Amino acid sequence: MIKSITKNPLYPIANPKSIAFFGASNNLMVMGSFILDSLLDFGYDGAVYPVHLKEPVVQNLKAYRSVADLPEIPDLAVIVVPTKVASQILEECGRKGIRHAVMVTAGFNEVGGEGVRMGRELVEIANRYGIRFLGPNCIGVTNPYIRLNSTALKFEGRPGFIGMASQSGSFVTQMFNYLRRYGLGFSTAFSVGNEANVDIVDCMEYFAACPHTRVITLYIEGIRRGEAFVKTARAIVPHKPIVAFYVGGTETGRRAGLSHTGAMAGPDPIYDGIFQQSGVIRASSIIEMFDFCWTLGALPEAAGTNVAVQTHSGGPGAIAADACGRAGLDLPLFSAETLTGLKEYIPHTGSIGNPVDITFSKDPQSFWYNIPNLLLQDRNVDILMMYFLEAIEMMERHMTRFMGWSPEKAREEGLRIIGAQADAIASLMKHHGKPIVGYTFRSLEEPFIQELYRRGIPVFPGPERAVRALEAMIRYKAIRAEMLSGDEREENGDSSSQVATGRYGRQVSVNL
Amino acid sequence: MIKSITKNPLYPIANPKSIAFFGASNNLMVMGSFILDSLLDFGYDGAVYPVHLKEPVVQNLKAYRSVADLPEIPDLAVIVVPTKVASQILEECGRKGIRHAVMVTAGFNEVGGEGVRMGRELVEIANRYGIRFLGPNCIGVTNPYIRLNSTALKFEGRPGFIGMASQSGSFVTQMFNYLRRYGLGFSTAFSVGNEANVDIVDCMEYFAACPHTRVITLYIEGIRRGEAFVKTARAIVPHKPIVAFYVGGTETGRRAGLSHTGAMAGPDPIYDGIFQQSGVIRASSIIEMFDFCWTLGALPEAAGTNVAVQTHSGGPGAIAADACGRAGLDLPLFSAETLTGLKEYIPHTGSIGNPVDITFSKDPQSFWYNIPNLLLQDRNVDILMMYFLEAIEMMERHMTRFMGWSPEKAREEGLRIIGAQADAIASLMKHHGKPIVGYTFRSLEEPFIQELYRRGIPVFPGPERAVRALEAMIRYKAIRAEMLSGDEREENGDSSSQVATGRYGRQVSVNL
Repeated sequence: MIKSITKNPLYPIANPKSIAFFGASNNLMVMGSFILDSLLDFGYDGAVYPVHLKEPVVQNLKAYRSVADLPEIPDLAVIVVPTKVASQILEECGRKGIRHAVMVTAGFNEVGGEGVRMGRELVEIANRYGIRFLGPNCIGVTNPYIRLNSTALKFEGRPGFIGMASQSGSFVTQMFNYLRRYGLGFSTAFSVGNEANVDIVDCMEYFAACPHTRVITLYIEGIRRGEAFVKTARAIVPHKPIVAFYVGGTETGRRAGLSHTGAMAGPDPIYDGIFQQSGVIRASSIIEMFDFCWTLGALPEAAGTNVAVQTHSGGPGAIAADACGRAGLDLPLFSAETLTGLKEYIPHTGSIGNPVDITFSKDPQSFWYNIPNLLLQDRNVDILMMYFLEAIEMMERHMTRFMGWSPEKAREEGLRIIGAQADAIASLMKHHGKPIVGYTFRSLEEPFIQELYRRGIPVFPGPERAVRALEAMIRYKAIRAEMLSGDEREENGDSSSQVATGRYGRQVSVNL
Repeated sequence: MIKSITKNPLYPIANPKSIAFFGASNNLMVMGSFILDSLLDFGYDGAVYPVHLKEPVVQNLKAYRSVADLPEIPDLAVIVVPTKVASQILEECGRKGIRHAVMVTAGFNEVGGEGVRMGRELVEIANRYGIRFLGPNCIGVTNPYIRLNSTALKFEGRPGFIGMASQSGSFVTQMFNYLRRYGLGFSTAFSVGNEANVDIVDCMEYFAACPHTRVITLYIEGIRRGEAFVKTARAIVPHKPIVAFYVGGTETGRRAGLSHTGAMAGPDPIYDGIFQQSGVIRASSIIEMFDFCWTLGALPEAAGTNVAVQTHSGGPGAIAADACGRAGLDLPLFSAETLTGLKEYIPHTGSIGNPVDITFSKDPQSFWYNIPNLLLQDRNVDILMMYFLEAIEMMERHMTRFMGWSPEKAREEGLRIIGAQADAIASLMKHHGKPIVGYTFRSLEEPFIQELYRRGIPVFPGPERAVRALEAMIRYKAIRAEMLSGDEREENGDSSSQVATGRYGRQVSVNL
């Protein structure tokens, strides 16, 4: 493994100072033009050199007839040209001295026949010139920390802590919007396409060394270098969690993956074995994959599996309790001290058991500070799960209908209250160092939930996703402990398969 | 079973012409005032008579010192008073001649001790006067078709086809907002609370006869009348599907349910047995419960399990194929005719296999009409699953950046295009009589998805939920077929346990 991020072949691909662009024009109905537009839209501030045979100006940039004419040797070539000319363009880039490329062009191994031959040609040219390239049949790279986005869709997100390598470009470019809605973002994301030259193992090494990446995530249709995958993952997992979604486990999924990136998938149990051996946590859907990244990257580590559930309605409490039970999480009894404390805030029709159900309280503020504070300071409690019903509309309704305020004053006061409540929750998580997760059936786009997201509190639609994401955290803790104790054993005996530790520094696990 | 909806004891509870209201005042920080406000806010147009000892006017309505003073005998009493006075109020209602009540007041069986005695007292009074009542410890009823909402939260939804009986009031009142976001709604929903007098079996009978109800759904913490449940469900299921979410299957869930409504839960396998015997489809979460209702109520029946998946990206196609494979749904090969037709619309870098992957198409319109039309007319295809990426922002970006239109003109044109696309999809479903479901990772609150919802096309976040909801439809079809063939056998032999058919008319299964 390469220890320094700048020595990783992906470094210039994710951090180019200048880009030669092939396949964009002023005809805006072609993919290349879309991608150039995305790149410019996000505000990448390196030099961009469109290469175009005929047009002297492309999307308001000076264009060059040939890569040979460029005034400098760019760090990176982005190539979105017809399949037949792709190898010629790569050859010309090589001759110019360009050593890194993103080959978006498709029509190679994934279509078979002549495509396979042309794919081999790309690799030969790259080898001849020492070029490292992403793709072909990929959608490129995004690194929001330098405002780089060479994908088809406009960047809608924010810089975040998720480092992603994906065998589907969709799960890079089409996830900007998805992640933004949860207050999440990529540190960097690579669409690896057919992996002719750079594969997910290279990406894992990059992310291991990337300071912005707290969690590594992989969308996999088939692993090409099994042994390297296991070895690399085992070196990384003690320091950063890796989450993977593998899609080729069924016959229908395998066939779809084959026609997509030409990857050879294997049956589920084989991949389960690889992931287990590697310490990689397997997710069962794209949504679950990002849920796992969320708790792993945003929350402090849980000391154990004891969950306190706090609600103001019995039903939401019961379903959370049931979901915890199904996942092997426990709802402990509270200490006598906690019970005494709770009595002060909870009416006789509520419940001071676990779940705590405050029902209809005359002092809504106790829900946001006093009660969670009591629960978090209980030695029997490792994790707090809170049900959120609060909507700004409900407060506004109260203030306008019952208190006679104007809608504007009510909105202003509503936002102030919501901010204060979210602050209270976030400060409790920080103070007690125990994870807090929320669940709700309201829209996740409502101001209150968005305020919680901004402060690093995950809130899930329903308790089941919250519980699954907590489980992933707990599993990671166990995997890491096992790997580290294995290391110690190996250090005292056979050191040939020793896993290096401390390379990447400690995982930064609290987002506050 | 009662054949006529008007003879069902719940009819006057769900369709009252006038209401006596106990426990509301001008002090707006009490539950009773909240509920009266909800009732008035939604615009219920029957007479509402607040009863209050001291205040002559409550929330702008003339109030009465005692129920005895009311100018008529109301159809319904809504009672939200302290536990200790609940039985006295019910007694006074009985004396006045009121025969139906919603007892919101809590503090009975669910708290044990003295509460149990007071709960028995309520039942005795009801029996003495022939009163039927919901609760205690419930949140009331909503019937959007007559703008009735006697629950704590403001009605935010629309009238729909889901008839719900819930042992948690939260999953009535707190779901208005949830269902509205999916374009769904309740036909009527009952919060049954402790079920002292009316239980979910009574509600099932009501919904069986309710013309607005296409799907019956139940939130269950414990079934009190097991035999009646099975018998009633078996009579209904051949005509209307029943979906249930049972929460008491784990020790943690059981304990939470007990302290919530005093219901005695049983282990999962017992409830699995009850549901199986009854033909009731079990959901594993609240969200899944409503997903099942959605496909069962909104879509035409699928002839089989063959799914065509249509995408414009390989990854989303692969995950849908994998999800189908895991659920036992098939992705068939297309007919030669379909393949020939598809070639016209799909570039060589795409795939005319199943999933169909159009990749980057120069004619986006083919995605919305020509391709799905080809797939739906293929005899090998029973169901169409479509991936939706389309966002109005992407169209607007194109029109403003590339075509130089004003933002206003672009938004107007964007909305027009979106409406036409949604129309095309809806008309294809109607024309071919085959179900279409969508999946996406964009916000479900975006205009395009909302337009699809309005036209009865379910769109799910990710393929897994879509597939599970399709599975529920397919399971229901099999259950119904088995039950009906069982009936035929019984008609030719032992008729003592004969299941009546044809009582409630055919299920209306297309929402177009």
